[in-house]
Amino acid sequence: MTGHTPAPVTVVGLGAMGRALAEAFIGAGHPTTVWNRTAGKAEPLVARGAVHSLDIADAVAASPLIVACLTTYDATSEALEPAGGALAGRTLITLNSGSPGQARQMADWAAGRGARFLDGAVKNVPEAVGKPDTLLYYSGDRATFDDHEKTLRVLGGDTVHLGTEPDLAALYETAVGGMLLPALVGFFQGTALVTARGLEAASLVRYSVKWLEMIASLLPALAAEVDAGDYANPSSSIGLFHEFIGQEREFWAASGVDVSWHAPLNELVNRAVAEGHRDHSLSALVEVLRKPGPAA
Amino acid sequence: MTGHTPAPVTVVGLGAMGRALAEAFIGAGHPTTVWNRTAGKAEPLVARGAVHSLDIADAVAASPLIVACLTTYDATSEALEPAGGALAGRTLITLNSGSPGQARQMADWAAGRGARFLDGAVKNVPEAVGKPDTLLYYSGDRATFDDHEKTLRVLGGDTVHLGTEPDLAALYETAVGGMLLPALVGFFQGTALVTARGLEAASLVRYSVKWLEMIASLLPALAAEVDAGDYANPSSSIGLFHEFIGQEREFWAASGVDVSWHAPLNELVNRAVAEGHRDHSLSALVEVLRKPGPAA
Ligand SMILES: NC(=O)c1ccc[n+]([C@@H]2O[C@H](COP(=O)([O-])OP(=O)(O)OC[C@H]3O[C@@H](n4cnc5c(N)ncnc54)[C@H](OP(=O)(O)O)[C@@H]3O)[C@@H](O)[C@H]2O)c1
Ligand SMILES: NC(=O)c1ccc[n+]([C@@H]2O[C@H](COP(=O)([O-])OP(=O)(O)OC[C@H]3O[C@@H](n4cnc5c(N)ncnc54)[C@H](OP(=O)(O)O)[C@@H]3O)[C@@H](O)[C@H]2O)c1
Repeated sequence: MTGHTPAPVTVVGLGAMGRALAEAFIGAGHPTTVWNRTAGKAEPLVARGAVHSLDIADAVAASPLIVACLTTYDATSEALEPAGGALAGRTLITLNSGSPGQARQMADWAAGRGARFLDGAVKNVPEAVGKPDTLLYYSGDRATFDDHEKTLRVLGGDTVHLGTEPDLAALYETAVGGMLLPALVGFFQGTALVTARGLEAASLVRYSVKWLEMIASLLPALAAEVDAGDYANPSSSIGLFHEFIGQEREFWAASGVDVSWHAPLNELVNRAVAEGHRDHSLSALVEVLRKPGPAA
Repeated sequence: MTGHTPAPVTVVGLGAMGRALAEAFIGAGHPTTVWNRTAGKAEPLVARGAVHSLDIADAVAASPLIVACLTTYDATSEALEPAGGALAGRTLITLNSGSPGQARQMADWAAGRGARFLDGAVKNVPEAVGKPDTLLYYSGDRATFDDHEKTLRVLGGDTVHLGTEPDLAALYETAVGGMLLPALVGFFQGTALVTARGLEAASLVRYSVKWLEMIASLLPALAAEVDAGDYANPSSSIGLFHEFIGQEREFWAASGVDVSWHAPLNELVNRAVAEGHRDHSLSALVEVLRKPGPAA
């Protein structure tokens, strides 16, 4: 890396996210080679200046850095297998979702091919790739990250090295990602409620965005309570939630919206009360989650 | 209202939130009368200049505007009942949580006492009361809102009148509030995961805050899909979630964290796939939520 000439990069996988990654590299002047199982998806990138390799071994051989964004780790090793020895001495970075165990397997697979390896995650939508505030985090060998950091910053200005253990990115991906589906189902439930009243789902957006900001503002104190194991000074107590759950159950039952997904959340709150956490902060729910639950 | 001399206000209920409301009024120079069932809680407010009424009828008679912030609507009517005819001709505003049906009952109760009435909600924590960005919304008679808007803005700069139907604030409160518990349980689950690895829960905060911002950025497009009933151009498909749910289930099962609360969320996604929404946007989940679910 001279730091002056953008380094060549190969992007493997041109789905919604891979395409956004390739576009960002092209836009920043990196000589960009692309490969995709379904070859036709390379066309719009070739039109913007990418080199299209039909052969995965050629694609890998074209650059010192290979960024792979396929659906899963299994799909990634399957797609890269025919590249044979071409990975030796190069850096492979995977940016798909998956579990920490799968990330460790992927790291072993890359090591077996003589490749340097980082695993990472794009913490945003494809449209956000390349923006100064967009977060991507990586884990694995620090020197490998340092060597490619400048190139990786092209994908998002908030580029972080989490640590040297290769599965840390997948661990945080799993830990952070767990809010997405339940938060969105909570939002859709709200849209079902207001649209049943003849109001637009759009009318909910501004208030829900502010509510998410409020939720975000609670996290530092809640995390500090978890780290201290001290739940005794709640800004919002488990008892308060417990009280409203009963009331809300009646309301929702009459609302015509399917809220069967609330039952185990309510059960968690009930268990916390039963275990003596009524006057504790909601963060004491972590103590309940750490115990084996009822068979699912 | 001359708009120049701050109007007298009575605050009924001095829990965490009521106290914050009273402090904001006092801070803005409003002559503030306070009442609480447990009288001792008035002391710190008296020290700051509030007038403490031990008698609820006196408290109500002291101001043209009475702001009540008790736990529930039932507690509110119970506490105000002994005020007898004192409410006639005054404005009562309730700021507790509760269902739309309970808000309508409260409106009827207030009308029966000859009071003008608004119901509202503080969409934030007590510490945020009085800040320029803090959201409170109200519903009920427009002229009543207009008459008191300047006073109400003392509680938060983002003060909104949702509409004239008195239960709209409770409707939005319920629709918006549904994201809180599941989002926080998702966060606590993440803290259980990283702390089991010996990492601090605090290390998760920065990434989770960004993730909530990302989730917020999705809401306008998702709401537009719900309003159009058109789910055919997903930025994230139900099929993608369906694919990862299987993988994640295995990982979490081995994690030692109780994720029994995932089961019905996964079931919603499975039902959406079974109903033909695999290639649709996640917002198509609203169609599933609108149908009666399995008995909870
Ligand atoms: N889209 C997002 O909003 C987003 C956000 C954050 C993270 N991610 C993560 O990024 C990764 C990719 O997501 P995406 O949205 O780009 O998915 P996508 O649009 O569905 O694209 C999937 C890509 O994987 C390829 N692929 C799958 N199986 C393969 C196999 N066995 N061999 C070769 N190629 C294979 C596909 O090739 P074909 O074109 O030949 O099918 C395609 O290039 C996922 O892990 C996702 O969780 C996505
Ligand atoms: N705290 C928050 O973060 C927050 C945020 C948004 C909305 N809210 C809503 O604001 C409302 C109040 O919350 P809070 O946090 O202030 O609760 P809190 O600290 O538990 O205070 C509850 C208040 O209600 C009074 N009360 C309860 N039952 C009563 C009865 N039967 N008769 C007379 N007084 C009664 C209590 O009087 P005593 O002092 O005599 O017990 C106390 O003043 C709730 O609806 C809550 O959902 C709270």
